[in-house]
Amino acid sequence: MIPEAYHDLLLGSVLAHVATIGVRGEPQSTPVWIGWDGEYIRFSQTSRQQKYRNLQRDPRVALSLVDPRNPYRYLEVRGVVVAFEDDPDRAFVDSMARKYLGIERYPWHHEGDEHIAIVILPQHTSQMG
Amino acid sequence: MIPEAYHDLLLGSVLAHVATIGVRGEPQSTPVWIGWDGEYIRFSQTSRQQKYRNLQRDPRVALSLVDPRNPYRYLEVRGVVVAFEDDPDRAFVDSMARKYLGIERYPWHHEGDEHIAIVILPQHTSQMG
Repeated sequence: MIPEAYHDLLLGSVLAHVATIGVRGEPQSTPVWIGWDGEYIRFSQTSRQQKYRNLQRDPRVALSLVDPRNPYRYLEVRGVVVAFEDDPDRAFVDSMARKYLGIERYPWHHEGDEHIAIVILPQHTSQMG
Repeated sequence: MIPEAYHDLLLGSVLAHVATIGVRGEPQSTPVWIGWDGEYIRFSQTSRQQKYRNLQRDPRVALSLVDPRNPYRYLEVRGVVVAFEDDPDRAFVDSMARKYLGIERYPWHHEGDEHIAIVILPQHTSQMG
């Protein structure tokens, strides 16, 4: 699904800008850390965050990633959320801290936060560069 | 409208990831060059490009920008398109080439391209860092 020449963008510590649909049908965009297992793209949210609520209402999502060393090389992935995985021991969000921060544990956990791994099935890509 | 501490992100050569709504109501996301005059945000499209067609149908837009020197500092701007300005002499797209490439003329013009400056009124921001 993801062209091989762009795998490095998903595997490296590149931020993805995630577009979702808000409650009034409006677009929203924010940068997130992402994981990719070769098939699904995941990102972490807490149950209070807006993107989580948006994606429960409308599972359609787009992500764009730009090569930090070449701003004219980018990948857009459109897809759909296929699962919301509870992450009670923080295994997923900790793996994102390892990927993006190089540390073992996610450092911004607050007591009471419910972490969720949002699982996206890529359906369409476009790319440049 | 835009918090002063984040003006540098709009004024510097930072890519903005623009989220728009596609024909089936789905989110789309792509990186673009942006200009900011202190009030309106503009980006350039040709009349054949999908974001232009999307924004003619639904003028709501979100942009997110990350500080290239600090990935935990970002700005999201939500707003609405208030004008589509024809750019027949390419003054606007050339100004974007100066800002982002440091050269006088936009280098990727093709015969027949109709350039348009899409003018966005910011209505809401969120930020981190």
